[in-house]
Amino acid sequence: MTQQKSEKIGIAMIGHAFMGKAHSQAWRTVGRVFDTPLEPVMQIVVGRDAQTTADSAKKHGWAESGTDWREAVTRDDISIVDICTPGSSHSEIALAALAAGKHVLCEKPLSNTIEEALGMAQAAKKAAAQGIKSMVGFNYRRVPAITFARTLVENGRLGEIYHVRARYLQDWIVDPEFPLVWRLQKEIAGSGALGDIGSHIVDLTQYVTGARIEAVSGILKTFITERPLPSSSSELTAESEGTSSGIGVVTVDDAAVFNATFDNGALGTFEATRFASGSKNDLGFEVFGSKGSIKFNFEDMNVLYFHDHQLPPSEAGFRRIMVTEGDSHPYMSAWWPPGHIIGYEHTFTHEILDFLTDIANDHSPTPSFEDGLQIQLVLDAVIRSSANNSQLTQVERKI
Amino acid sequence: MTQQKSEKIGIAMIGHAFMGKAHSQAWRTVGRVFDTPLEPVMQIVVGRDAQTTADSAKKHGWAESGTDWREAVTRDDISIVDICTPGSSHSEIALAALAAGKHVLCEKPLSNTIEEALGMAQAAKKAAAQGIKSMVGFNYRRVPAITFARTLVENGRLGEIYHVRARYLQDWIVDPEFPLVWRLQKEIAGSGALGDIGSHIVDLTQYVTGARIEAVSGILKTFITERPLPSSSSELTAESEGTSSGIGVVTVDDAAVFNATFDNGALGTFEATRFASGSKNDLGFEVFGSKGSIKFNFEDMNVLYFHDHQLPPSEAGFRRIMVTEGDSHPYMSAWWPPGHIIGYEHTFTHEILDFLTDIANDHSPTPSFEDGLQIQLVLDAVIRSSANNSQLTQVERKI
Amino acid sequence: MTQQKSEKIGIAMIGHAFMGKAHSQAWRTVGRVFDTPLEPVMQIVVGRDAQTTADSAKKHGWAESGTDWREAVTRDDISIVDICTPGSSHSEIALAALAAGKHVLCEKPLSNTIEEALGMAQAAKKAAAQGIKSMVGFNYRRVPAITFARTLVENGRLGEIYHVRARYLQDWIVDPEFPLVWRLQKEIAGSGALGDIGSHIVDLTQYVTGARIEAVSGILKTFITERPLPSSSSELTAESEGTSSGIGVVTVDDAAVFNATFDNGALGTFEATRFASGSKNDLGFEVFGSKGSIKFNFEDMNVLYFHDHQLPPSEAGFRRIMVTEGDSHPYMSAWWPPGHIIGYEHTFTHEILDFLTDIANDHSPTPSFEDGLQIQLVLDAVIRSSANNSQLTQVERKI
Amino acid sequence: MTQQKSEKIGIAMIGHAFMGKAHSQAWRTVGRVFDTPLEPVMQIVVGRDAQTTADSAKKHGWAESGTDWREAVTRDDISIVDICTPGSSHSEIALAALAAGKHVLCEKPLSNTIEEALGMAQAAKKAAAQGIKSMVGFNYRRVPAITFARTLVENGRLGEIYHVRARYLQDWIVDPEFPLVWRLQKEIAGSGALGDIGSHIVDLTQYVTGARIEAVSGILKTFITERPLPSSSSELTAESEGTSSGIGVVTVDDAAVFNATFDNGALGTFEATRFASGSKNDLGFEVFGSKGSIKFNFEDMNVLYFHDHQLPPSEAGFRRIMVTEGDSHPYMSAWWPPGHIIGYEHTFTHEILDFLTDIANDHSPTPSFEDGLQIQLVLDAVIRSSANNSQLTQVERKI
Repeated sequence: MTQQKSEKIGIAMIGHAFMGKAHSQAWRTVGRVFDTPLEPVMQIVVGRDAQTTADSAKKHGWAESGTDWREAVTRDDISIVDICTPGSSHSEIALAALAAGKHVLCEKPLSNTIEEALGMAQAAKKAAAQGIKSMVGFNYRRVPAITFARTLVENGRLGEIYHVRARYLQDWIVDPEFPLVWRLQKEIAGSGALGDIGSHIVDLTQYVTGARIEAVSGILKTFITERPLPSSSSELTAESEGTSSGIGVVTVDDAAVFNATFDNGALGTFEATRFASGSKNDLGFEVFGSKGSIKFNFEDMNVLYFHDHQLPPSEAGFRRIMVTEGDSHPYMSAWWPPGHIIGYEHTFTHEILDFLTDIANDHSPTPSFEDGLQIQLVLDAVIRSSANNSQLTQVERKI
Repeated sequence: MTQQKSEKIGIAMIGHAFMGKAHSQAWRTVGRVFDTPLEPVMQIVVGRDAQTTADSAKKHGWAESGTDWREAVTRDDISIVDICTPGSSHSEIALAALAAGKHVLCEKPLSNTIEEALGMAQAAKKAAAQGIKSMVGFNYRRVPAITFARTLVENGRLGEIYHVRARYLQDWIVDPEFPLVWRLQKEIAGSGALGDIGSHIVDLTQYVTGARIEAVSGILKTFITERPLPSSSSELTAESEGTSSGIGVVTVDDAAVFNATFDNGALGTFEATRFASGSKNDLGFEVFGSKGSIKFNFEDMNVLYFHDHQLPPSEAGFRRIMVTEGDSHPYMSAWWPPGHIIGYEHTFTHEILDFLTDIANDHSPTPSFEDGLQIQLVLDAVIRSSANNSQLTQVERKI
Repeated sequence: MTQQKSEKIGIAMIGHAFMGKAHSQAWRTVGRVFDTPLEPVMQIVVGRDAQTTADSAKKHGWAESGTDWREAVTRDDISIVDICTPGSSHSEIALAALAAGKHVLCEKPLSNTIEEALGMAQAAKKAAAQGIKSMVGFNYRRVPAITFARTLVENGRLGEIYHVRARYLQDWIVDPEFPLVWRLQKEIAGSGALGDIGSHIVDLTQYVTGARIEAVSGILKTFITERPLPSSSSELTAESEGTSSGIGVVTVDDAAVFNATFDNGALGTFEATRFASGSKNDLGFEVFGSKGSIKFNFEDMNVLYFHDHQLPPSEAGFRRIMVTEGDSHPYMSAWWPPGHIIGYEHTFTHEILDFLTDIANDHSPTPSFEDGLQIQLVLDAVIRSSANNSQLTQVERKI
Repeated sequence: MTQQKSEKIGIAMIGHAFMGKAHSQAWRTVGRVFDTPLEPVMQIVVGRDAQTTADSAKKHGWAESGTDWREAVTRDDISIVDICTPGSSHSEIALAALAAGKHVLCEKPLSNTIEEALGMAQAAKKAAAQGIKSMVGFNYRRVPAITFARTLVENGRLGEIYHVRARYLQDWIVDPEFPLVWRLQKEIAGSGALGDIGSHIVDLTQYVTGARIEAVSGILKTFITERPLPSSSSELTAESEGTSSGIGVVTVDDAAVFNATFDNGALGTFEATRFASGSKNDLGFEVFGSKGSIKFNFEDMNVLYFHDHQLPPSEAGFRRIMVTEGDSHPYMSAWWPPGHIIGYEHTFTHEILDFLTDIANDHSPTPSFEDGLQIQLVLDAVIRSSANNSQLTQVERKI
């Protein structure tokens, strides 16, 4: 297989904490594993602190570092802006980048407010008319087992869908002494478990089923309402870093539960929490249909369980499919032999592969900013329902 | 171990379908495996059809059969009335039996209406003052793994409880051609998945956590609204028995989902359905607390998963405890060596053991009729919430 | 379904410890759950100590008790002799019973010596010519999942079989202070892990595959060679009962591992041990074939994992079949709805059902004494191989 | 954390098929994720065909490509030679590289013959005296769960070890039409399942237990003895690539089973096969000790199951430890948050990290060539045992 020469394309990444590290790994890897139509050049990473950002650039392999994202997103050698900052700054950066004619990959949630998200979706739509692509980073869609699950549903293997059961369970703040990091502060993070992890299961279940949530009834809960202040905090970079002397108020939800009705008649249950002791990253969902059912758990992400309800009952049951067949499973031909598993970071590599491919082929990437907005509208309906005695609340349509 | 001579006690069982068969097996077995303080005598089984009931008596080992439950519950040689009929007849039989001074074991749900259930709870309370015992048959409490889970919670091993996640998933009516059996008819069954199987997870989660549900927000759903009529139907005995030519309307829910707040501050999610293809009897729950968590699944009922959150994170994780240790696990000393599992029917044997023991020791059995009423009130709140746009609805208190 | 009147048949059970208890439960239950062609009458149980045996009779529901097995096995009202004693007394009792024209159900292992086993097999063959039935109690064959596994193999669903992997792992004597009970004494038990539990996996893998082991290469090992003497010991009844002051020598194997070649070309691996900490009763096997594979684990005995290798690789995987479908899985129509599991004791009920049915229909029961002999010959070859530097050793043929 | 400037070190990689691709990903990633004391420079990749190798260099990010490994291993800008060719060429390349004063990382098996492996171990020993490091690539040791398992054993958490059970099950050649690729040809591959995958479980079980195998008793088996010839074959690069018209003889084993005695008294069972339908890469082991036990399965490689036998039996059981805690689990601090799993390729990154660290710190890497030789000697003993009627055969000591 002779390697085709592919055009280079310059990347600016804004933010370099957890997501920035994951995206860097993906940008570095994608062309080495897949035959990408464009060859990404890791040009510049932007952060708030010059030294920290310079260290990060060197560490993660970016050619340059900087502290001025406005400058970075307008550079001629930059074609893609990759936004890895917290949600509070997404809108401003994305709008500037789109205005500058750059393709934009924006981490989820699209934004912390519906208004901003709407503005972003509208800007993206306008930019799309000029061939400018945008995509919101719901990376878990690119778990091969999940992409494959979507294919099974699309092919009618589940029949009519009756039930969707989704959960995203973590336990990293069960300890009341865990500090008040930015993810627990509404002004930066937008929301808590609901937006951070609940958003993923909203996206995934809609993606896999091909259906949209119409209405929700939910409860948000904050179990620990005050926490020690962290010893330092930076909007763009801080993860947990010890505590200082003060006490602060937790302004986001620790947990969110909601029931949902889908536009295909299915009933959905959702639970997102950071208080499920023993659950590290238990993102999972189950979909039950008239002809078959599936189960997925991210902690064992190379596996999809599939029940074929059309088999004789004596032989039917959930089967453990290792989604690692290069010949037939999505993305896997580029990786390792069957049974040699891939991990979390690969989802970003796949996401970027698809983004580059869509740019090269002038296709519209998914999930779009409009999809990102719709997910925000679902979360907003949960918030409104919770504030309104859990009343079943319609998801608004904005576009 | 010299066997003590124990007093005999006469039993009348009303109804002899699925539950009657399970109870018969338990009455026959309990004294052969456990050292019961009273020796049950399987005196009479009562049904609607004389011949069928006579056959059943012979088959299941009852000395006599009859069709007149009113006569049976007043006989002098009867001390315990075991009610295994559908919910619509529970109240009338139980009240008569209690009035006749008989101890009453009544299958769940306690009754099809709150009014009847309240009357039963009041009658049971009054009878209790005379030493007459009553108990409602939430048999799953007597799964050793569940009884053991209750002990872990009671001993503080889970700490403060944050989350309860419960499900009861079956798939026996996914086929639209499955006939309209009595369990799908409101006038006999009272309710559908909610009352039949949802009631079990309400009871179990309250039992294991020691907390009560205060309010619920739910959605009931009937996916298949019309079904072929069964070829025959008998209030007391009919299970699925083929179809006749007509079509009838399904008057109960196929599925029920609801969120709940507990009086200890925990958040609960509940899902009961007969439309989860691939799930045979997937009764399961998870409880997450500040110090530990548990997971249970009835299809592997001899196992309890326990996560000790107080262990160092490097060594912590859900451990698979086989709850089959005769030396330390509830009920197991009477059965087989560790790892030799027991099954569904044993839960009834344990239930009856405890009932006989309570009668002999003049203790109050649990779950009481009042407990049964409280569960009905939870289900009633779900029904009201569903009818009222899923509003968070307080569980009423009647006693 | 009108119950047919069935002929009564008297049972004498010799021995009343662990196996006696399990068999009693089965004799008591079989006719209440299944439509048996003969109605067993639990006539007499025989033990060494009059009072203990009388207590046992009363407890387990036998009409009489006695201490003279020779008398019992010749009584006119006895047609079946059920031998539940340790292996050292099997031969004498079985020969006497067969000579008296009684059908014999004998617990495994058939005997402690090849010579005795051969004599029993010959006697059984001779008796068979007179219509006298005999069967050796490898109860695990009657786990529905295992019977179903046999059917899958028989129907060609596994194709050509390449690998058999079997294990039986327990941990009840890991503690060096566990006393020297009869099962650790060669003169009573015959052998250790090999004969007690290894025999089961030899039987099961031969049964499921329909193939015979031709040669074996093995290692026997005793990890703890001396143990405290138990406080009391009775040949027929003693299980673990505390320790006395002395120390005794362990004369059986703690563990046995062996490889095997089957007459169908398959390669087998076997491991039986009482030193696998954390394994309670982990009897399991896997069979891999050209068209499919199966996995079974007794601790979750209602489940069979089946991989259909003829499915497209993208959809293939081990599926979890709950073997609880009354319509299609062996033995299950008589029990509970799908997903309502059965346990250890049910295997004995099924065994007795089949024995009674074979007696009524004048069919030859399996496994026969000859089958039991063949299994003893496999174990004997393992012992000889272990003593002979693990040389691959042919299984002898005696009949 | 200010990034320290680290010295650059030039790498030549010989071979660029499956292993070359995996190593390339590791060389490219290691410094971006870990703080390596040396900064690897991916200088040159060497293969047989100029164009293919040039494509591979471009694809995988090597600065140059070449076809003359002798030239490459003596270049001044090369300090590390990474041998990724089939076993038949390992010795020649390694000896040349060591002679040229280069550090050598050599894929397993060390060599196809004991003689060559011995020569390599001796050369490595001699080179070590000059500060030249060598390491054999048993990458699975660097699965964090396995490294952690080793720590548990080292800390005495398993107590005295009784049983080791290991398997490596694949199914990629079950189809008789699968072609005769180089891995099925003895002159290139050295051996079949035994050397290719059996070697991994020999290494892993010795590594985790800290014990050495003393003697083995085994059986090798070739189920399909003739296969279609592949359409093309290249010693250094060919994986499966279709078939041509001819038929060839399979000269290696399809499966190997063997029992082993360890020098700590433990009993081991091993099974390596390419004929286990449904098993993709089922590398797993179990270790049972007096104080605890562990279970591992590579298909779910981020998890270790640990049973603490010192807990009360009522609470003991195998616990599922997600080995993804950055604070306490090996290698994980550099990756993602808990529960965000890593995959197969990461084992190579860890291996290279350790190799670079040992070079920088002048420590001796493990597994050494001598360790590699010892593993070959174990495999050799299996081969001799199989050829000698499975006799228990001592593992030779050569150094």
